Amino acid sequence: MDLTFTRSPLDHAGLFRGDPDWIDGLMADPSARVLALSGGAPLPGPDGAPLALTVPEAQARALPPGLVFLGLEDGAPWFAATVEGEALDFRRAAMTAPPGLAAIMGRARSMLMWHGRRRFCSNCGAENTVRDGGARLVCPSCGMEHFPRTDPSVIMLAHHGDRAVLGRQPGWPEGMYATLAGFMEPGETIEEACAREVFEETGLRVTAARYVASQPWPFPSSLMIGLIAEVADGAPVARDDLEDARWFTRAETRVLYEDVMARWAPPHFSVSRLLIETWLKM
Amino acid sequence: MDLTFTRSPLDHAGLFRGDPDWIDGLMADPSARVLALSGGAPLPGPDGAPLALTVPEAQARALPPGLVFLGLEDGAPWFAATVEGEALDFRRAAMTAPPGLAAIMGRARSMLMWHGRRRFCSNCGAENTVRDGGARLVCPSCGMEHFPRTDPSVIMLAHHGDRAVLGRQPGWPEGMYATLAGFMEPGETIEEACAREVFEETGLRVTAARYVASQPWPFPSSLMIGLIAEVADGAPVARDDLEDARWFTRAETRVLYEDVMARWAPPHFSVSRLLIETWLKM
Repeated sequence: MDLTFTRSPLDHAGLFRGDPDWIDGLMADPSARVLALSGGAPLPGPDGAPLALTVPEAQARALPPGLVFLGLEDGAPWFAATVEGEALDFRRAAMTAPPGLAAIMGRARSMLMWHGRRRFCSNCGAENTVRDGGARLVCPSCGMEHFPRTDPSVIMLAHHGDRAVLGRQPGWPEGMYATLAGFMEPGETIEEACAREVFEETGLRVTAARYVASQPWPFPSSLMIGLIAEVADGAPVARDDLEDARWFTRAETRVLYEDVMARWAPPHFSVSRLLIETWLKM
Repeated sequence: MDLTFTRSPLDHAGLFRGDPDWIDGLMADPSARVLALSGGAPLPGPDGAPLALTVPEAQARALPPGLVFLGLEDGAPWFAATVEGEALDFRRAAMTAPPGLAAIMGRARSMLMWHGRRRFCSNCGAENTVRDGGARLVCPSCGMEHFPRTDPSVIMLAHHGDRAVLGRQPGWPEGMYATLAGFMEPGETIEEACAREVFEETGLRVTAARYVASQPWPFPSSLMIGLIAEVADGAPVARDDLEDARWFTRAETRVLYEDVMARWAPPHFSVSRLLIETWLKM
């Protein structure tokens, strides 16, 4: 099964969304739907599924910045808007939604959470103006353009032969350990960021790293870049945001994967599981 | 030869830079050097190479946000600061600097250009406060944290069998064509962004894509993610930011690579060249 938030059915229509008349035409399209979110999570519809409003309904309820264009699904426009109301739990909603809708919800969440914190121009402090159906902000005072953030992060199954090093953050369910991960920083390649993160979190040195897959991760706007990394042997020392880091044999990793992790989220929910699965088969 | 801006010798010291006393200690270190930039490009030193100041010299000349910590090179601290003055051409300086210094200049440029446009909080418009030696901004009014941007972009050698499709932007030197490229958007995997960009720029459909390598690209803060993509056959139609897109045979691509591109930049300057080189050997 494909990873959650991937294989979005949306055509972002990057060549057309800059034309306000084109966006207006989409808003008049009777097939247009507006995903209603509060705090980045969908509101429940009458059936408990994520609430999709018509454009007039959404225009009556939308808070700033109004309707944000997400893309076209088989020609039918999708927008998103922040409205008042009690939202569903985003993770649970994404786990249970049909895959295409989960991907649309992920894009909606990243876009609206970005807008939610970008009312003002970071260059001069003036209030931004929305352009391109919400895919761009422009400052009317200094002219600076602002584009949505996508924060690349590395996530890796780090192993030495038949043992993997996994980490645990404070507050996690009993027995839960996961692959190491962290945000990339300016001036790094993907493989260099992988080596830095493994060292920061465990003190172990990466000797090789191989890209496996990526996943958009809307918490709020990460791109998870998954790798399998070989590390030099040693005793891991939990640092940074970890409370523990330790070696797991293949058998222990399999138990973790099939038991503890399975209670946490479905196997296709994050690239972390795919990395573990890939390593177990290596 | 390694790609320019990669293999940075810097330890970003993420576990320590949050401590202001630790940063103060580095500033008092006589081995500390401060790269002086204007508009994101280094100023020339007495020998024409990028200017490195002492901390007291830099403190006397630095414009806001002051000295930004870049990392440790074999234990010696590197900072960067924006100062007034006429800068070198950044590309030329990066092409001619020793590789380690070019990587440090790349990180310095990304960090300072980010700071240059982040004086104000995008959430509330108040003036941000610098933290973690410049690796974080905090808004004293609403409390929002701001971290440096790294903008993932896909760049791909798109081919169908023995022909590659390359594009040309307006204003480029005569005969110059290059690999297709563009920014990733929220809600995409790396491979999905690759397919979207190739379609947007040429109308061709990607059938497979394989990650090859990545490169930090400080113009101002991109992460170039390089792929080799297979596309379905067809007639490319230049769109988006391209004025032309066309098929190149292997022989034509080799001429472009060895002749036109070689006059443009050294072969290791961008991942684009590495992708072409990789495909020519496939």
